Amino acid sequence: MGRTSDARERILTAAEALLLSRGYSALGVAEICAAAGVPKGSFYYFFASKEELALAVVDEHWAGRRAGWERALAADVPPLARLRRLYAYAEDGLRADRETCGAVTGCLLGNLALEMSTRTESVRTRLREIFDEQVLLLEGAVADARGRGEVRVADTRAAARALVAQLEGQVLFAKLYDDPGRLGVLWADSLALLGAEAAPAAG
Amino acid sequence: MGRTSDARERILTAAEALLLSRGYSALGVAEICAAAGVPKGSFYYFFASKEELALAVVDEHWAGRRAGWERALAADVPPLARLRRLYAYAEDGLRADRETCGAVTGCLLGNLALEMSTRTESVRTRLREIFDEQVLLLEGAVADARGRGEVRVADTRAAARALVAQLEGQVLFAKLYDDPGRLGVLWADSLALLGAEAAPAAG
Repeated sequence: MGRTSDARERILTAAEALLLSRGYSALGVAEICAAAGVPKGSFYYFFASKEELALAVVDEHWAGRRAGWERALAADVPPLARLRRLYAYAEDGLRADRETCGAVTGCLLGNLALEMSTRTESVRTRLREIFDEQVLLLEGAVADARGRGEVRVADTRAAARALVAQLEGQVLFAKLYDDPGRLGVLWADSLALLGAEAAPAAG
Repeated sequence: MGRTSDARERILTAAEALLLSRGYSALGVAEICAAAGVPKGSFYYFFASKEELALAVVDEHWAGRRAGWERALAADVPPLARLRRLYAYAEDGLRADRETCGAVTGCLLGNLALEMSTRTESVRTRLREIFDEQVLLLEGAVADARGRGEVRVADTRAAARALVAQLEGQVLFAKLYDDPGRLGVLWADSLALLGAEAAPAAG
């Protein structure tokens, strides 16, 4: 299985890059196989459909990103500093993405949420689970900050959702304007959103 | 030209609904013509390509929405109340959309920004102009609020961008979770972002 396992990995890697740069609908299985350098028969050995492949790509993508989120939000620094580290991680990701792809391709999960939510229930369900996880990860930092009296937040869940929404919104503009620097405001804006002590006002 | 003008309008209306529910790549000209009830020849009489149609849909869509933005942000009420009115307008739009389409299809402009930014320069350019307009419209309200001493904002442009990002981010989640109510937090979160006096903290 060494050989075929490698083929599965190559398909996933090629599909992730193509999904990021072109979206789901614009992609055909033949194109994915060509980019991965595998015959079409291999594809259907591993994946029943393009939809099943998309789910596998989403899972693998988030597994990698979740590790980054967990490192950024680890409790070795105070909670608000964790947020700052998460936004730096996200901005670095967009910069790396721009180096590799020639343009900011944005957040695979956000891209697919807008492209596929109303069309493919399996993908919508998986994306909801992942964004719920993101909210929980951020809520941990928000709750810690509240415990230390550093923020004024009534509902930590709603506050964490606002932070994820702000992140996805700024990533949308980073992609539209092809500018990873758009994420530079996230930390200050989050402090304002959370009513942090001595928060710089927006802008 | 009465007859053919009507055909152009029917194509635009059908294409707007299809673009919202299915995105750009998934759509074919034949499908648009079928939904509009016009022969394919008519399509190419009015539009050189699907890309040209998408630009026309974006223009027509924003012309309608801009009128709504301008009404919501009109100076007959204080600036922060204008923001509240804008968010109510946006939430009403998602609710109407859900009635018509059976699901929240989100913001056509945000959807296309994520689907097409890296692939179709003409669409990217037009969307940038439109989001720049949205930022300017919101900046007017932010500057008025600052002039009245109601918000603490250093850079009104950056603050307006944060508001538009927050809106697009929450619309993304309204679509993913099929819940227009996700926009209910926008006003309170905007007050926090702007450092408004007596702003409720996020959540």
